Amino acid sequence: MQNRSRLTKGLIQVYTGNGKGKTTSALGLCFRAAGHGLRSFIIQFMKGQIVYGELNSAKLMNGLITIEQMGRPDFVSKQNPERIDIEMAQDALRLAEKIIKSGEYDIVVLDEVNVAADFNLIDKNEVIRILKERPENVEVILTGRYAPQEFLDIADLVSEVREIKHYYSKGIDARDGIER
Amino acid sequence: MQNRSRLTKGLIQVYTGNGKGKTTSALGLCFRAAGHGLRSFIIQFMKGQIVYGELNSAKLMNGLITIEQMGRPDFVSKQNPERIDIEMAQDALRLAEKIIKSGEYDIVVLDEVNVAADFNLIDKNEVIRILKERPENVEVILTGRYAPQEFLDIADLVSEVREIKHYYSKGIDARDGIER
Repeated sequence: MQNRSRLTKGLIQVYTGNGKGKTTSALGLCFRAAGHGLRSFIIQFMKGQIVYGELNSAKLMNGLITIEQMGRPDFVSKQNPERIDIEMAQDALRLAEKIIKSGEYDIVVLDEVNVAADFNLIDKNEVIRILKERPENVEVILTGRYAPQEFLDIADLVSEVREIKHYYSKGIDARDGIER
Repeated sequence: MQNRSRLTKGLIQVYTGNGKGKTTSALGLCFRAAGHGLRSFIIQFMKGQIVYGELNSAKLMNGLITIEQMGRPDFVSKQNPERIDIEMAQDALRLAEKIIKSGEYDIVVLDEVNVAADFNLIDKNEVIRILKERPENVEVILTGRYAPQEFLDIADLVSEVREIKHYYSKGIDARDGIER
C-alpha cells in the first residue's frame, strides 16, 4: 500500500481539561494541515448525537479530512456503562488501530478517547500499545477531559483547556454552528 | 446590504493562556460553523510570517471562511514597538470594525488581538467599544496570550489553554502542516 504520509516525524498531542476548545482545536489542526496536503482521519469516540457541522464541512475538503462518528445519543454512565457503549468504544478503537497502521493518514484524531479510557470503555494500555506501534510519520491527537496519566506521559505535547467562564452557566444552550 | 448572519445571538469568546490550541480552536470553530452555512472572517493580528496552511484550506470552503493576515515577519518588541507594527495592528482593528459592522459574517475571529492589546499596539477600549456596538447576531472570538481583564469581563466564554508539556522544549521545531 502506498504510504501517503508526509510528516517526517509524527508526534502525540493531548488536549484535555474541562474547557471549551479541545475538539475544535483538533478540527482546526486538521483544517490547517489540509492546506499543506496532509490527510487527516478523525474518529469521534462517545459522540452521542451526530454532529452535522463538521461532517458537512469535511465534505468540502477534497477528501483530506474524514470523520467517523461512533457512539450513540444516550448518556453513558461511568459507574455502570451499558454493554453497547463498551462495544461501540471498542469498535472505535479497532478502527483507530487500523487507520493508524494503514499509514494512509498523516494525522489521526482520537476525539474523546480520554473519556472513553477514563470510563473504562476501552483499556488505556491498548491505546498506549497502538500509539507505540504507530508508523513514525503518523501524528496522533487525543482529546477529552480526564486524560489518564499514562497518556500524558507518552505525549509530546499536552495542552490543558480550563473553563474560566462559560455561557452555559448563564442559561444559554449549545447552538447549531457553534457547539455542534 | 443583505444581512446574511444566521445566529440568533452572537456571543463573545476568548481563548487565552500560554498553551497550544488557541488559534487552532478558532479555526476549528469556523470550520464546523461552515458546515451549517455560517460565514466566518478571520483577521490575524501580528501574524509574523504568512501562514499558508490555513490560507490554502480556506480556499476550499466555498467562500465560507475568509482569512486576512496582517503584520510582518519581524519580532515585535513590547517595550519598544516599531511605528510600522502599531500602524499594521491599527489597520487590522479598522478592518475588524468594518467586517463586524457589515453583518455579512456570522463569526469574526480577531486572532492574537489579546497580544496586540497587551503590547499597546491598539487601544483595548477601542476593542471593547467595537464589541459593544456589534450587530447582535455576530459572534466574535478573541485569541492570544495575555488577554486584558476587560476582555475577560465582557466575554461570555473564556477558555484558558495551559501548556503542560511541549515538544519545543525537546528541541523539535515548528512543522509545516502542524503549526503553520
